[in-house]
Amino acid sequence: MDDIARALGITKGTVSKALSGAEDVSEATRRLVLEKAVEMGYMRIPRGSVRPKLAVFVGSMAYKKPEDFGYDIVVGFRKMAEPAGYAVEVVPLTPALQRETHYDSFMMRGDYRGALFLGLSLPDPWMREFETCRFPAVLYDNHVPGNPRISHVGVDNDEGMRMLISHLTKLGHKRIGHLGSARSAYVYRQRCDSFFLALREHKLDDRRSLACNVYHMSECITRHLPRLLEQGCTAIVCSHDKLAASVLTQLGDMGIRVPEDISVVGFDDLPLSRTTTPPLTTVRQNRTELGKSAFYALSSLMNGVPISTLLLHAELVVRGSSGKAPARAPFPFSL
Amino acid sequence: MDDIARALGITKGTVSKALSGAEDVSEATRRLVLEKAVEMGYMRIPRGSVRPKLAVFVGSMAYKKPEDFGYDIVVGFRKMAEPAGYAVEVVPLTPALQRETHYDSFMMRGDYRGALFLGLSLPDPWMREFETCRFPAVLYDNHVPGNPRISHVGVDNDEGMRMLISHLTKLGHKRIGHLGSARSAYVYRQRCDSFFLALREHKLDDRRSLACNVYHMSECITRHLPRLLEQGCTAIVCSHDKLAASVLTQLGDMGIRVPEDISVVGFDDLPLSRTTTPPLTTVRQNRTELGKSAFYALSSLMNGVPISTLLLHAELVVRGSSGKAPARAPFPFSL
Repeated sequence: MDDIARALGITKGTVSKALSGAEDVSEATRRLVLEKAVEMGYMRIPRGSVRPKLAVFVGSMAYKKPEDFGYDIVVGFRKMAEPAGYAVEVVPLTPALQRETHYDSFMMRGDYRGALFLGLSLPDPWMREFETCRFPAVLYDNHVPGNPRISHVGVDNDEGMRMLISHLTKLGHKRIGHLGSARSAYVYRQRCDSFFLALREHKLDDRRSLACNVYHMSECITRHLPRLLEQGCTAIVCSHDKLAASVLTQLGDMGIRVPEDISVVGFDDLPLSRTTTPPLTTVRQNRTELGKSAFYALSSLMNGVPISTLLLHAELVVRGSSGKAPARAPFPFSL
Repeated sequence: MDDIARALGITKGTVSKALSGAEDVSEATRRLVLEKAVEMGYMRIPRGSVRPKLAVFVGSMAYKKPEDFGYDIVVGFRKMAEPAGYAVEVVPLTPALQRETHYDSFMMRGDYRGALFLGLSLPDPWMREFETCRFPAVLYDNHVPGNPRISHVGVDNDEGMRMLISHLTKLGHKRIGHLGSARSAYVYRQRCDSFFLALREHKLDDRRSLACNVYHMSECITRHLPRLLEQGCTAIVCSHDKLAASVLTQLGDMGIRVPEDISVVGFDDLPLSRTTTPPLTTVRQNRTELGKSAFYALSSLMNGVPISTLLLHAELVVRGSSGKAPARAPFPFSL
């Protein structure tokens, strides 16, 4: 009521009267209050009635603070789900939970109608259950074919990767390397595949050694970054912004200048990518719209409309970490 | 009014009175009539107001009769667009029209807000304009990356092709060929790529000569079908049902029995696929839902939500044209 009163510039008492159906409030005010309440995502729960529940499972993805990657996705999802009459509960997704109970059993016991999954990893035990599960589930950035109750929602990773390579190519880069942890996540695997497709489209050197495929970020930095430098790369495409930020730090330690000696680009446009030195060129995902689209997909699944995939366009964000290709690669020549 | 009267089993006079607000009709009847009208896709146009227009461009796809592939897509699209307040106009898409005027100019002159495209071919002149056009467009079964005003809507072709190969593999087929006209349409190209991916997943022979890539269906029948038979294929996957129907006819002429000697499968589940001899095993697209999803994508684009891709799950439909792999291939052994 406070929020609505503030938004309309009226007293909380008037809002309360309008909502409770008191007679000393005009019909016009009552309508104004109700419409604002709906617009702001509030809903009236008839006494004794229970709203159907949806679960948002969150695995390895931060979402609690506004600057966390998952925050806006959850907000976007709630913005659609709650006015439509659902209660949304966030459930931390641990490997222990998944080993302890099956997905369908968990949903049944909790009386959930459907679920959104954020931060799933390929080794997650429930990943295999999605092939045959019966409760509708929308997977952010994960794809499980063959089950009409599963949708994949995300950004068009292939398009995003092409945008990065096309941007670097226009800057004159001819040998481009890729750091990523394709083993841990479907989406990093996909970005790595798209990286090579894009290299081929631009008729660039596409030898397999220009990418790495590991579990841990630290391995990318200590082992594979030097390997790419030794191969004469003048640009490094990272499969996500955090990795790109670590690469920037490491290059700084090595005395290699970005973007003068080498360009570094990321993916995701995390808030941190504005504050690195230099700020990161990356690919933006519209996370609020992803959350809203995830609800659209889930509500379609719950109504028997078998959406398989819903992707949003990627958007290239050019900042200071990418620049003209140097006349010579920083390695092995410059040291 | 006739339609509504018939649907409700009341007189046209009553419908007319209910719609015009006459006083000798009960509130219950008025509500019944209005709800049926909305359900049937009718809407009241306030005098003097103009509904915003959407265009459905139809290239090489039949859509006029209920048994035509495009019919239900257009119906599904209208079912969502008209109650939302839009007027939908179907515009035949000829190469002449495309050469004569640009897409954006056509939309501007016709005062259209957005468009759905059915039956686009890769050589269509407007295909290149979609990379930079300004009016929102949803392309059925075509993908143009890089423009946030373009969406791709279709069935999950990759999933559908995997379902066919998995079905044939379970029946014991080890050498499977593919007939298609990948040069004419994006979607046939995609199905051909997915065909080879699926062969590899099942560790089957995936030599390139097991597929063909031509413009015309007749070439598939006269030139490539014999070539696949000579290579010992016991199953033929066709990129669409019409081609599969022609293959069945041709095999009949050659005295080769389906499915005893060879299995033949199609894609799309056209109405004809129930009536071939034997009826075709194929992949179904839910065309009404595709039309509805196309409207969702278009209305998202018009509201600045950049949907890149929206795919529906494919569904395998098993009929008589696929069966257990024969002990020996019909060719070259049996002749």
